[in-house]
Amino acid sequence: MSAPVSPSVSRVGVWLIGARGSVATTVVAGCAAVTAGLHPPTGLVTETPMFADSGLPALSSLVFGGHDTVDCPLPKRAEALAAGGVLPPGLPTAVRAELSAADREIRTGGPLPGDTRGEEELITAFACDLRDFIRRYDLARAVVVNVASTEPPPTGAALPPSALYAAAALRAGCPYVNFTPSTGLDHPALTPLVASAGLPYAGRDGKTGQTLLRSVLGPMFSQRALTVRAWSGTNLLGGGDGASLADPAAAAAKNAGKERVLADTLGAAPEGEVHIDDVPALGDWKTAWDHIAFDGFLGTRMILQTIWQGCDSALAAPLVLDLARLTARAHETGLSGPLGELGFYFKDPAGEGPGALAEQYAALRRFAERLRRAGAEPRGDRLARPGGRDAADRIEEQR
Amino acid sequence: MSAPVSPSVSRVGVWLIGARGSVATTVVAGCAAVTAGLHPPTGLVTETPMFADSGLPALSSLVFGGHDTVDCPLPKRAEALAAGGVLPPGLPTAVRAELSAADREIRTGGPLPGDTRGEEELITAFACDLRDFIRRYDLARAVVVNVASTEPPPTGAALPPSALYAAAALRAGCPYVNFTPSTGLDHPALTPLVASAGLPYAGRDGKTGQTLLRSVLGPMFSQRALTVRAWSGTNLLGGGDGASLADPAAAAAKNAGKERVLADTLGAAPEGEVHIDDVPALGDWKTAWDHIAFDGFLGTRMILQTIWQGCDSALAAPLVLDLARLTARAHETGLSGPLGELGFYFKDPAGEGPGALAEQYAALRRFAERLRRAGAEPRGDRLARPGGRDAADRIEEQR
Amino acid sequence: MSAPVSPSVSRVGVWLIGARGSVATTVVAGCAAVTAGLHPPTGLVTETPMFADSGLPALSSLVFGGHDTVDCPLPKRAEALAAGGVLPPGLPTAVRAELSAADREIRTGGPLPGDTRGEEELITAFACDLRDFIRRYDLARAVVVNVASTEPPPTGAALPPSALYAAAALRAGCPYVNFTPSTGLDHPALTPLVASAGLPYAGRDGKTGQTLLRSVLGPMFSQRALTVRAWSGTNLLGGGDGASLADPAAAAAKNAGKERVLADTLGAAPEGEVHIDDVPALGDWKTAWDHIAFDGFLGTRMILQTIWQGCDSALAAPLVLDLARLTARAHETGLSGPLGELGFYFKDPAGEGPGALAEQYAALRRFAERLRRAGAEPRGDRLARPGGRDAADRIEEQR
Amino acid sequence: MSAPVSPSVSRVGVWLIGARGSVATTVVAGCAAVTAGLHPPTGLVTETPMFADSGLPALSSLVFGGHDTVDCPLPKRAEALAAGGVLPPGLPTAVRAELSAADREIRTGGPLPGDTRGEEELITAFACDLRDFIRRYDLARAVVVNVASTEPPPTGAALPPSALYAAAALRAGCPYVNFTPSTGLDHPALTPLVASAGLPYAGRDGKTGQTLLRSVLGPMFSQRALTVRAWSGTNLLGGGDGASLADPAAAAAKNAGKERVLADTLGAAPEGEVHIDDVPALGDWKTAWDHIAFDGFLGTRMILQTIWQGCDSALAAPLVLDLARLTARAHETGLSGPLGELGFYFKDPAGEGPGALAEQYAALRRFAERLRRAGAEPRGDRLARPGGRDAADRIEEQR
Repeated sequence: MSAPVSPSVSRVGVWLIGARGSVATTVVAGCAAVTAGLHPPTGLVTETPMFADSGLPALSSLVFGGHDTVDCPLPKRAEALAAGGVLPPGLPTAVRAELSAADREIRTGGPLPGDTRGEEELITAFACDLRDFIRRYDLARAVVVNVASTEPPPTGAALPPSALYAAAALRAGCPYVNFTPSTGLDHPALTPLVASAGLPYAGRDGKTGQTLLRSVLGPMFSQRALTVRAWSGTNLLGGGDGASLADPAAAAAKNAGKERVLADTLGAAPEGEVHIDDVPALGDWKTAWDHIAFDGFLGTRMILQTIWQGCDSALAAPLVLDLARLTARAHETGLSGPLGELGFYFKDPAGEGPGALAEQYAALRRFAERLRRAGAEPRGDRLARPGGRDAADRIEEQR
Repeated sequence: MSAPVSPSVSRVGVWLIGARGSVATTVVAGCAAVTAGLHPPTGLVTETPMFADSGLPALSSLVFGGHDTVDCPLPKRAEALAAGGVLPPGLPTAVRAELSAADREIRTGGPLPGDTRGEEELITAFACDLRDFIRRYDLARAVVVNVASTEPPPTGAALPPSALYAAAALRAGCPYVNFTPSTGLDHPALTPLVASAGLPYAGRDGKTGQTLLRSVLGPMFSQRALTVRAWSGTNLLGGGDGASLADPAAAAAKNAGKERVLADTLGAAPEGEVHIDDVPALGDWKTAWDHIAFDGFLGTRMILQTIWQGCDSALAAPLVLDLARLTARAHETGLSGPLGELGFYFKDPAGEGPGALAEQYAALRRFAERLRRAGAEPRGDRLARPGGRDAADRIEEQR
Repeated sequence: MSAPVSPSVSRVGVWLIGARGSVATTVVAGCAAVTAGLHPPTGLVTETPMFADSGLPALSSLVFGGHDTVDCPLPKRAEALAAGGVLPPGLPTAVRAELSAADREIRTGGPLPGDTRGEEELITAFACDLRDFIRRYDLARAVVVNVASTEPPPTGAALPPSALYAAAALRAGCPYVNFTPSTGLDHPALTPLVASAGLPYAGRDGKTGQTLLRSVLGPMFSQRALTVRAWSGTNLLGGGDGASLADPAAAAAKNAGKERVLADTLGAAPEGEVHIDDVPALGDWKTAWDHIAFDGFLGTRMILQTIWQGCDSALAAPLVLDLARLTARAHETGLSGPLGELGFYFKDPAGEGPGALAEQYAALRRFAERLRRAGAEPRGDRLARPGGRDAADRIEEQR
Repeated sequence: MSAPVSPSVSRVGVWLIGARGSVATTVVAGCAAVTAGLHPPTGLVTETPMFADSGLPALSSLVFGGHDTVDCPLPKRAEALAAGGVLPPGLPTAVRAELSAADREIRTGGPLPGDTRGEEELITAFACDLRDFIRRYDLARAVVVNVASTEPPPTGAALPPSALYAAAALRAGCPYVNFTPSTGLDHPALTPLVASAGLPYAGRDGKTGQTLLRSVLGPMFSQRALTVRAWSGTNLLGGGDGASLADPAAAAAKNAGKERVLADTLGAAPEGEVHIDDVPALGDWKTAWDHIAFDGFLGTRMILQTIWQGCDSALAAPLVLDLARLTARAHETGLSGPLGELGFYFKDPAGEGPGALAEQYAALRRFAERLRRAGAEPRGDRLARPGGRDAADRIEEQR
């Protein structure tokens, strides 16, 4: 897809926060499987013709690492996912080498229970892990992607873990993607760092199911001048996300994003609630039921219901790969700040932008064109010289 | 919405084929109700800001008439619809005058059982009814809209009734809209007449439920690079449409349009059938269930199901009013031929055009702009002089 | 259905707590409509052949009254229900006389806002209203049925309103039916009164939708030895019940009943939550979605989903009429205590009994037979002599 | 579960027609897995306490063989089923020995394409295979179970394949179970043989999904005196059954059984159609959507919808094991003729009997009791002496 380049400049790191979770495991296994031709690139928008000449890093050039606080090895995690029907049977064995390689690059995150390190200490440690990763693999750059379980919204001045990792990304000069509704870069304490870092970033909260549907159905009602009276929804999910979202505070963070798409596309938020239930029996599978009561001509009451049954990891993983490649290339071309053109991927996109999927897709298409036209920026080379003094160093000094 | 104009030029006729049916009754009653401020213009896209300056004829300027072969008076039909929950209780009484006025302008269609009139005779009679309608009301123009029950596809050289009415529209110099999957203008014998008539026309088969959904869901799967394996559907509907579509040949005509949207938006038609069941117990209500089996990343099998419960007449009527206004204005501005920009409204749009609703909406928006910029063409005045010799007269002579 | 009897002994009172609500209005209007032959007795199990000879009071013999704290007249309430599609259009006019008659027998309940009356005073007042009703109509007996909005569970020693009304029923010697999940007779302070009153009673919480389904689906899984892993549900409802159940405490009361049926029929309560959402846009209509994840042979994971769309009042009203007739007849035959045979009607039946609907129906059939065999007891006549000293008087003195 | 018995009398054969199909493979693999304790006996009603003392043959005593016209080995077929998620990953390997053992006992069925053998010749060959199986394993008896793909209904006098196999079962003195809607024993030409054979038999068409639901929902509506107006359904299924049922004639056979349960439980067949679609993308999984329009009190229109998503083989296999054990035990106790008490298992049960699942379950419970009370009949020993002259020999001579 991408033109062959010399290995010394082509390798790009993907540093996953939550690197031993279902999504991360599927990202690593899936990238290897598609690269090896074991599966077609279903779900990877960056493998469609629209991105053919955009200069994205090849899937085969991606190197994986990350942080996590648990220690189940990736090959073992992959076996569990295959047993649950999330990964195809046989895949863990077929890509065991790649899983083991990524596993060796996972560092212990934090704060751990009883951790006495302060915020600054943790950020320094995480940034050090990142720089070490970049240096050892001689990476052109590394993108940090948060795929950890959803945190409750922060209540005080302390930085939640997701913000610590995000700060470490800034400090190491790495583009950042927040695939979750957690805080990440969106913490007041990080605002000045974000502004001065000059790095591209994207987020937040990947749009994988119910909200994806809402982003096409909301515009449909709006374009047909039908009045939505109430939009109610229930999500059933097991796995880690189900458990963390059973915490009402975490669920509230998630739901804020879900509701935004309706308010954006319908003009006003309709009646109706969204429930997120933890149903361990469903494992990594999720079901989302939506019930939309709308008025037609002369106030006639009508109803649309949708039932979406999907595998969360399989829905998220290709989007994570897309985002890592797009953000890496954006970095290479010298872009910085929120990548509003990536609203296609998020429930609650950074920056201003349309809420309707079709318009978001058009924006993504324009982004593909923009990347195509851009040449490689000097920044791309800079990171390959890890000894240099750069924006990340400056950030480090400012704290 | 539109600026007030002098009555002599502003009145526009809407001539409904199937003028005593549920859709037609809802069109007439609903236009009166919205004009009188009894209901907001829910479902009328032509009443949204996008069309504010497009020069569309005002709802209050529309005059209704039509052909039918049954003789139930419109006020009585409206009462039945209100009893079935299709019209709001009380509405038939509130707009009785308008229903009666339209009822007086309904002429007997054909061919009737045992009818000995030939095709030419029937076309002449229908065109004569149309011209008489235009002349007596001093209409600027009249648009013919087919809202009759779906016909089976024609099997021989004979013109089916919908084609006879369409030919009469051409002969009387009237723009034509085919809201059904019946033949209408799409008959080889009419091709030369269509070409020489220089009239705008639109069709076919109004997109009111399952296909509307498909036109937003198909693009969603495509844009996300998800592979649709099978798309299956069942429609349950009572009323006249249910009965006529229980005829497998008529259903085949309907389904061809439904499948086109999937082939257009997905790139290829997936597995799966569409059933249309006549369920008289549902009356004018319809339920459409869709089951979409798709592959995600690494071939993971997922499913989306949708259930659409709507009232067919309430879904169709505002689209019919939109189309009548848009086609009348197109005629006024001198447009002719298939109005491809109205693909937003149809399952199987005339002419080339996108299948995705969002792109169809963008095309409609451009159409609104085009109408806004256009001045009134001389053609608009021409029809007000019914004695003049025009394209319609030429068509008549050619036959 | 029932043999004609002389008017002086045949009239039976139905005293509705919440007498101006949707359910009560539908009960009164519906009883009149069926009696007048305007509608077939759909939904009335007591009108099926099984009860032909059980000696139930005829529908035409029922006299309605009740307590409420709002003052919208029943005929006006009925008009509103007809406008919302809950009652057939035209019915409020057709049965206006009966609605007005019942309206005249509605007394102000309590406690009202700012009410200074104590519990004893309120009970006395309510019992006085009941006795007056019985006396003026020379009723054989009157059954008190609670159809008021669901209360939150009581938190202290104070009697909630439903318990005050229930105590008044005991004091006036009236059989009692609790169609709601509110406390009613199930308050420790009432236990001795219940025991000494010697009256039949039934409850609680009418089984009208989701739980009805669960009571047939639960046994199906159990009988087929299929393991239910998780049973999740969401209820959307507008109307008064939606609003009162949006209170988490009230919802908790409701859900306890819903879960009991699963625990009873599956052997153990499965994973899964039940949500009750207030969606005012739905008016008196409710939608219940259930998602049941179950294991088949070799642990194969399968799913059943159900969607129930009904009108709450239309579902409840015939059950209320059934219960009033059955409880009246039980009283006539001298039965007292909890009528466990009526578990067919309730989410959380009084007394021991099966949770599966089929077994509950079999119990109801046996009850019909038992009533058939019973002769009229003297108790039936006693209440017709309101001056006499009876169990109700004794209860009054004990307090 | 059953008391240990000496091996020489305890082994029971299960001879599967369609022995290489998904259902048969799941039967063999599943019996081995449950026997080995790898999985709990989910779905096996005969393993519930109700049958604890009924004298059923132990799962470990079952020996499998059968006829088929394809030649894919069972271990390979099981691997394919595991890849499709029908069998648990790893199970084919774990029970490979048992699959291979059964595979060795599968004989070529017929008629094959171009087969010149006449009906008598085929029956003789099949019966010979059966007797050989019984003799070599010294089986107490063997039950023949038809799990082959559904045939179209026979159109002429010729015996369809299912009837040939059924005749062979009679001739070999074997009890017979028809788990499909195919003809089997229900052919006029077999009637005298059935009558004289003195063998127990059961059928037809296993109740595994949509009809199972209907057999509990139909009674629910009926018991609540709710009027079902229309019951419509669509089944989507891949696998062999989907393909064979795409033949309208075969589907008609299937649907007759489905409709019977509604007519039986509702009193009359409601409006509505049933569709069976072949959707190869679904593999062995099936989805059944039902839409039930019913009238409540005062004619209020309400709707119930159900969506059943299951794996056909996993639903069928435990029922096949149940039926084989029950029919074997019935034979042992000397029962003959249609086993009406097994209506619990069938869409279209042989003999008279209730259509409601709860009543069928009660009948099954009585059957369990009846088997418990029965001693072993001499018939049980007879078959162990294959040289003896018995009913099967007489049948053979009569033809």
